[in-house]
Amino acid sequence: MARIALGLEYNGAAFCGWQSQPGGGAVQDAVEAALAQIAGEKVTVTAAGRTDAGVHALAQVAHFDCGAERPQSAWVRGVNALLPPNVAVLWAQTVAEDFHARFSAVERCYSYLLLNSAVRPALFYSQLGWFHQPLDVGAMRDSAKILLGKHDFSAFRAAECRARTPEKELHKIEIVRRQNLILFEFYADAFLHHMVRNIVGCLVYVGSGRCPAQWLGEVLESRDRSRAAPTFSAAGLYLSGVRYHPKWRIADFNRNMLLFP
Amino acid sequence: MARIALGLEYNGAAFCGWQSQPGGGAVQDAVEAALAQIAGEKVTVTAAGRTDAGVHALAQVAHFDCGAERPQSAWVRGVNALLPPNVAVLWAQTVAEDFHARFSAVERCYSYLLLNSAVRPALFYSQLGWFHQPLDVGAMRDSAKILLGKHDFSAFRAAECRARTPEKELHKIEIVRRQNLILFEFYADAFLHHMVRNIVGCLVYVGSGRCPAQWLGEVLESRDRSRAAPTFSAAGLYLSGVRYHPKWRIADFNRNMLLFP
Repeated sequence: MARIALGLEYNGAAFCGWQSQPGGGAVQDAVEAALAQIAGEKVTVTAAGRTDAGVHALAQVAHFDCGAERPQSAWVRGVNALLPPNVAVLWAQTVAEDFHARFSAVERCYSYLLLNSAVRPALFYSQLGWFHQPLDVGAMRDSAKILLGKHDFSAFRAAECRARTPEKELHKIEIVRRQNLILFEFYADAFLHHMVRNIVGCLVYVGSGRCPAQWLGEVLESRDRSRAAPTFSAAGLYLSGVRYHPKWRIADFNRNMLLFP
Repeated sequence: MARIALGLEYNGAAFCGWQSQPGGGAVQDAVEAALAQIAGEKVTVTAAGRTDAGVHALAQVAHFDCGAERPQSAWVRGVNALLPPNVAVLWAQTVAEDFHARFSAVERCYSYLLLNSAVRPALFYSQLGWFHQPLDVGAMRDSAKILLGKHDFSAFRAAECRARTPEKELHKIEIVRRQNLILFEFYADAFLHHMVRNIVGCLVYVGSGRCPAQWLGEVLESRDRSRAAPTFSAAGLYLSGVRYHPKWRIADFNRNMLLFP
């Protein structure tokens, strides 16, 4: 029995999220079905981040245990030939038996890509959030600093969130504009359910001038979800990286924001 | 009765192409249905380029005639509220009665976006072409020069092409790499059916070392479709601009290759 780690890219638009559902339609279902064909046995996959319906991954990391020995190419090219076109294995490697894609992760990066233009997106309609009024990136950057560090993020937590604690540590937030696209990047030890989409909603309130920069601090301190802005669309959200301690020898902190070369 | 020109963006993945089909499912059908609701009358739309199934547009230009007077915002925001999420009107303006989106166009630009990596695309699976072996962009650039100017492009023409003449004038070809993405841009007075996808197929033969740069010239001179490489996937093809004589006062040569800021 060996433990194998996978890097995964997927387009979440047609999936009900990462996690297996009784009726199927989850990324996990698609990946497990393809792996089982190569392995010749039932396979259960555990991912670093359980992305929601419509949320994409540039660099999801997952692991599974398997009794069958297969060359690395079978887990990449072989599995990709069996997966639907909206999911692909980027890399595969054998890892230590006590490596865990979710519990061994020390940092996750989520990116949010927002089209800031009067007209809504069409070409990338399922891959972009959208806001029609001009946004002040400088004001959003100033405001976002308030969130850095260890905090109780209950104000940005979905009601259905099952995390053990609302305390998370935000390591870094980057906000960059290229023409009418704004890319937000959030690095934290872990995230609450809807946390990024709720923070982006609040930053848009600040960027559009609806709320002052320090308002975000008041929302954070209130720990009250009803004080924050509405949850932003899933379409613009990407799990763009998962970092592990070097001892696990996981390829690297994979990130590949194709839209922002 | 006034003639109105529109700029259109669309994701072609779910459409059977630009041109109306008896069963529906064309971009034209979606646009005409939305315009008719705003106009309160039947509307017929003519586009600069009749894109194929799966081909996208960043800046399609179309025109229609309409007896109803509506503010410009009705043709943009009003129509966008009625269109499906994969099509949007970017701009609308009243034009001279003898303006014709197709026949007045003096130049079109098609872009082809190719993922050059060992693993196939997943996140942008319907928006990228793909080639798995390393490609030499310099060799492709050298080879592409052979096609510049006025030529009989029969070797790159689909059997079902209905153009009056196979003679077209290629004004400019640009090939740029950013990480593992290669962007091809073709500027010509007009294009034959499948011409860009057939040329990209041949350039990939050159870029991968399968054929020398001058082979493309032999294919061109042969005027023989069977000499050229197979047609490349529609997924990576974008109508990215249409140029008109300034006398028509059409907004501009719209181009917005979002993936290549």
